Amino acid sequence: GSYSTASSQSQQPSKLLFRQLFEKESSTYTYLLADATHPEKPALLVDPVDKTVDRDLSLVKELGLKLIYAINTHVHADHVTGSGLIKTKVPGVKSIISKASNAQADIFVETGDRICFGDLFLEVRATPGHTLGCVTYVTGEGPNQPQPRMAFTGDALLIRGCGRTDFQGGSSEQLYKSVHSQIFTLPKDTFIYPAHDYKGFTVSTVGEEMQYNPRLTKDEETFKGIMENLNLSYPKMMDVAVPANMVCGLQDVESKA
Amino acid sequence: GSYSTASSQSQQPSKLLFRQLFEKESSTYTYLLADATHPEKPALLVDPVDKTVDRDLSLVKELGLKLIYAINTHVHADHVTGSGLIKTKVPGVKSIISKASNAQADIFVETGDRICFGDLFLEVRATPGHTLGCVTYVTGEGPNQPQPRMAFTGDALLIRGCGRTDFQGGSSEQLYKSVHSQIFTLPKDTFIYPAHDYKGFTVSTVGEEMQYNPRLTKDEETFKGIMENLNLSYPKMMDVAVPANMVCGLQDVESKA
Ligand SMILES: [Fe+2]
Ligand SMILES: [Fe+2]
Repeated sequence: GSYSTASSQSQQPSKLLFRQLFEKESSTYTYLLADATHPEKPALLVDPVDKTVDRDLSLVKELGLKLIYAINTHVHADHVTGSGLIKTKVPGVKSIISKASNAQADIFVETGDRICFGDLFLEVRATPGHTLGCVTYVTGEGPNQPQPRMAFTGDALLIRGCGRTDFQGGSSEQLYKSVHSQIFTLPKDTFIYPAHDYKGFTVSTVGEEMQYNPRLTKDEETFKGIMENLNLSYPKMMDVAVPANMVCGLQDVESKA
Repeated sequence: GSYSTASSQSQQPSKLLFRQLFEKESSTYTYLLADATHPEKPALLVDPVDKTVDRDLSLVKELGLKLIYAINTHVHADHVTGSGLIKTKVPGVKSIISKASNAQADIFVETGDRICFGDLFLEVRATPGHTLGCVTYVTGEGPNQPQPRMAFTGDALLIRGCGRTDFQGGSSEQLYKSVHSQIFTLPKDTFIYPAHDYKGFTVSTVGEEMQYNPRLTKDEETFKGIMENLNLSYPKMMDVAVPANMVCGLQDVESKA
């Protein structure tokens, strides 16, 4: 979907250019954000997928953007990140992931850090529980920043769901605390943009998930019981995706180095 | 994707609640629009799909909306519309399609008509060529209306593509004229929301398609040549979907009547 706002403080046209992109096989959403009013139109991609890198880079080029960051919310187990491939195709792009992920990247972030692109920025919030290193990126507060805010929650909070907590340092207790303390404390009209959706939803809001999320509206004990009894199968991509994603999606290249 | 605007005329919060919804099997987008600031929160669905009616109606209910219209851009050949099913499940909902489609519905529209929901409205523009009865619904102009405008183009204009023109009264000549006279004349920042996307794009703009659509940027003769040489196979759903959609998606019910 697309999103465009007039700043709540002024009559300026929207600074944020926003595109949501879908990779069908892994049902992954990649997000393109740019400061469209900055002369260089600096842009970033959140959770790019290796298979759709060419599509994403064509769009970046057609829109006249300058891609500066390829950002991951966490080390994905279900698809290979596009960040490594993007770096080989667009010199100068920096990859970003959380310090807590222990993965390779050019820049490591933690709670409170800001990722700036033009006059816009994303705020980093640690939201561990699906994996140890999961973070949520939230658009900033202040003049020129998009209103309502937008939260890129990775697999911490999905629309009417959440990521599994049974591997990669996952913990249902931690996930419950993360969502309640770091996401549900955002303004209720904040948009939730997850890393995946399997039912065709594209967006939700904090208020909606606080009211209707079938897992996270429960008390902590009930939530832990739900997460312990999901009986999920081992992700078929995991043994390929996780090692590759620990090195920015470039497993073969790195192992030769 | 989600979309929310402050009116360009005032500091009011966004009136439009907007959700884009995806049906994976036929790669169809359904759109939910509502006037969120009206006391009744009147809402409409554009191009609902039979298989995802329950998902869509749950969302309508959770968001506290009052669904009043189920609207189709045309008689689809690739999926069965949800409008008939919606009418059986939510009494009072009226189905809408173009007069030129010759399909059944509660309300027939043609160029220049307005479909009102609360203080918001969609404008009807005839865009034949994919089918004889195709229309594009465009959000209104004026105070309170979303800015930039949004065009729901059905299969007339797709992102970097367009619908086929080889059946259902299709005509490449007509499609070329429709897109150029009815869609490319909208402001360049108008969002294009198509009925389908097969590559994971969710939105485009008039300006983008005028510059990068690989078919419609060509001259009319080249366009006609492209459309004549697509060598597409017969849509597998066509013999089921078209007769069903001519009667609002309720073929079995109607044939018993
Ligand atoms: Fe994950
Ligand atoms: Fe169609």
